[in-house]
Amino acid sequence: MTNVPSVSYSITVRLEVPAGATAVSLLTATVEKTGGLVTALDVTGSGHDRIQVDVTCAASSSAHADELVEALRSVPGVTIGKVSDRTFLVHLGGKIEVKSKVPIRNRDDLSLVYTPGVARVSEALARNPEDARRLTIKRNTVAVVTDGSAVLGLGNIGATAALPVMEGKAALFKRFADIDAFPICLDTQDTEEIIRTVQHIAPVFAGINLEDISAPRCFEIEARLRKLLDIPVFHDDQHGTAIVVLAALINALKVVGKDLSQVRVAMAGAGAAGHAIAHLLYTAGVRDIVAADIHGVIHPGRADLAGVPTWYLEHSNPRGVTGGLRDAVAGADVFIGVSAPNILTADDIATMTDDAVVFALANPEPEIQPQEAGRHAAVVATGRSDYPNQINNVLAFPGVFRGLLDAHSRSISTEMLIAAARALAGTVSDEELNPAYVIPSVFHPGIADTVATAVRDSVEIIRKTAEETGEFPAVPV
Amino acid sequence: MTNVPSVSYSITVRLEVPAGATAVSLLTATVEKTGGLVTALDVTGSGHDRIQVDVTCAASSSAHADELVEALRSVPGVTIGKVSDRTFLVHLGGKIEVKSKVPIRNRDDLSLVYTPGVARVSEALARNPEDARRLTIKRNTVAVVTDGSAVLGLGNIGATAALPVMEGKAALFKRFADIDAFPICLDTQDTEEIIRTVQHIAPVFAGINLEDISAPRCFEIEARLRKLLDIPVFHDDQHGTAIVVLAALINALKVVGKDLSQVRVAMAGAGAAGHAIAHLLYTAGVRDIVAADIHGVIHPGRADLAGVPTWYLEHSNPRGVTGGLRDAVAGADVFIGVSAPNILTADDIATMTDDAVVFALANPEPEIQPQEAGRHAAVVATGRSDYPNQINNVLAFPGVFRGLLDAHSRSISTEMLIAAARALAGTVSDEELNPAYVIPSVFHPGIADTVATAVRDSVEIIRKTAEETGEFPAVPV
Repeated sequence: MTNVPSVSYSITVRLEVPAGATAVSLLTATVEKTGGLVTALDVTGSGHDRIQVDVTCAASSSAHADELVEALRSVPGVTIGKVSDRTFLVHLGGKIEVKSKVPIRNRDDLSLVYTPGVARVSEALARNPEDARRLTIKRNTVAVVTDGSAVLGLGNIGATAALPVMEGKAALFKRFADIDAFPICLDTQDTEEIIRTVQHIAPVFAGINLEDISAPRCFEIEARLRKLLDIPVFHDDQHGTAIVVLAALINALKVVGKDLSQVRVAMAGAGAAGHAIAHLLYTAGVRDIVAADIHGVIHPGRADLAGVPTWYLEHSNPRGVTGGLRDAVAGADVFIGVSAPNILTADDIATMTDDAVVFALANPEPEIQPQEAGRHAAVVATGRSDYPNQINNVLAFPGVFRGLLDAHSRSISTEMLIAAARALAGTVSDEELNPAYVIPSVFHPGIADTVATAVRDSVEIIRKTAEETGEFPAVPV
Repeated sequence: MTNVPSVSYSITVRLEVPAGATAVSLLTATVEKTGGLVTALDVTGSGHDRIQVDVTCAASSSAHADELVEALRSVPGVTIGKVSDRTFLVHLGGKIEVKSKVPIRNRDDLSLVYTPGVARVSEALARNPEDARRLTIKRNTVAVVTDGSAVLGLGNIGATAALPVMEGKAALFKRFADIDAFPICLDTQDTEEIIRTVQHIAPVFAGINLEDISAPRCFEIEARLRKLLDIPVFHDDQHGTAIVVLAALINALKVVGKDLSQVRVAMAGAGAAGHAIAHLLYTAGVRDIVAADIHGVIHPGRADLAGVPTWYLEHSNPRGVTGGLRDAVAGADVFIGVSAPNILTADDIATMTDDAVVFALANPEPEIQPQEAGRHAAVVATGRSDYPNQINNVLAFPGVFRGLLDAHSRSISTEMLIAAARALAGTVSDEELNPAYVIPSVFHPGIADTVATAVRDSVEIIRKTAEETGEFPAVPV
């Protein structure tokens, strides 16, 4: 699976070869023989008897990229020059920048943008802080907050090493929802310190996107910040994933003609994402969820329940299943994995009901390879970009925040997440829907707008209800 | 003084008048009669017997702007429409934005900028965090940190109301030094909380610019952060001002033919800026500084010394002056005020030596009006933009940070500040130097570059000395 050449391991090798009819084709053949993929080839210099060539090729890993260079080096007459790595080239100097939106050409401009003019705006805000959403960047600005404790599949790599991921997230916020997001990478992994720091920096922001913070600290950090702050707080690893899973499940069940309230769902993984998915599915109407963690199925009689969110004991496993993951999977209509690679086989999937739905979301290696799962399941989704039905958070978070910001929302509730999921599911029309297309591509136009509108409408309905009844409906996420 | 119309109180009034030869000239006359200044006049619509006109005019205050509107309303036949305020228009939606520097057009781009490609960059940084200055925004990013406790002349208006000022500062960083600065407005004014919060968010930044934090907390916050962090920490209200004052003083003394080490300097104000100026002048060679605060001249025998930095007792007032500000000013060659409006008269300046230098920097109203001071002083500078010789921090901070970032400096020292001041003074050539031009305009081309080069060179000299001697020269600011 990981042997597929990918652009994220793309290198450009500058080399010299003897000028001749076969020189270049020999290079291409060498790369391909070594399992690489030539994506570009430029002659960048030419002499009487030698030419300089830039060969850009995709490898399947860093080690494989090294192999490709060595293979090229062994071609007779070749001299290897500089080898550059496209991923690192893209990252040079960082991926985002802060720009001024106002011209500062002369003293008049300066007087408007800075002293003395700015003092009048500050005075106005001191009288009426609500105007910050009109007269400052707060209107459109989100903090992407991490402590670097659970970064992608890399684990606890710390604040500095997490920065490229947070910059990437900020770039995606801009690209997909025109939101100004700024990375806040915290030099602490203490729950109380994180909460206090985010609280202190909150005035500039209209929303907080928590990112790559490990469980169980992420639960408390999010819950406490929601109480402390008057802006929405959203842990993307939890709720972003949950929204996209619910959207994909709505459509997958449409494909197989089953009903959300009737299906049995087996889950592998009860961490941050697993907990959020289970919670959102339950709120959306799923009644039979059986979750297994590394110690087996979660049920009240189990000895080792330390660290398992109480939610599972109160709302999951209505039939009192015991045993291991296989006991949960047998007879299930849906499997959702957010756990570990290769823990299920095709035979396990065969024990599920007819027209089973399998979301194997462990990344980069899923719980079961999609080809294997497809032997018995009707619909298969993964987190990978090289298979159909990719469950990708980019489908959710930009639109969710766009809607929250546009509605000037001071909080976020499960209704809003469900509205987002239903809207996302709705972007796949009945004509388009099929087993290989239950969820759209992130580049499908209009996704963020559709999600944003649904979230904004949801905020407004909740606000209206609150005004009419005098109280806010209490369904915190 | 405050009756001068300014662009920072500029309004645009949309109105309708009867079409006719004198209609428009009557509007202009009315604005001018009421003390305003018409800066633009556009006919935006025309009918058979009426025209629509946008009159843009500068007022001298908000109240004066209201007066202008009322005066226009009283012109026969005029109907007033929308009145817009140019300063507020410029601030709508905030003054800065976060932009992606990398294209995200398709899945390949996404794989480079975000997962899976970004994971390789994060892994590289986990192995070698120093590479953050190459592969992330840290290289060029500065935090503009405030607690909103001492904002411009407005005092303690808090974090949210301070945001327009910090956004303006970020815009100036970009405009004058191509630095990516982001506002951090803190919802706390507790010294320990501020220190801890800045420490926690530091990984993303290559420098911290403290701004508008009240004394004496600013001293401790800066000193402690300098010890805790491995990036330079610079309180602009202190050191930015001190650099520009020293630069202007170097040139002013050139004009009057006096020597830095020989002059007597009287100062009004011993707060954040006063302390930094006194300290920098002393380090640059000034030996006779007598400072007065609101209780009089600072000397060891004074009863009320609580809150007065000990520096003054150890390094100032070598002749043991006692009494009030006037006692300090009498016989001084230089007066530097960073205190309160209109506390000196022309008669006080007359007690100074011949060819006195007066820097009356209280803003917007100086310690003495420049026309008054000019009756007896040879060189006069203020903080105002409507007089020659404006002492403006924008002359210093962009270049200082540019130099620190380019040198990858981990700290800042008084040598670097003096290098910056000397370089800034040097931007005024001997041919240009005169009593009305001891310091250049902020729009003078190349200022930030010149200052940056001096700071970078200073960092490198200090680094080289440290490598040779094995220790870092300890002259902390």
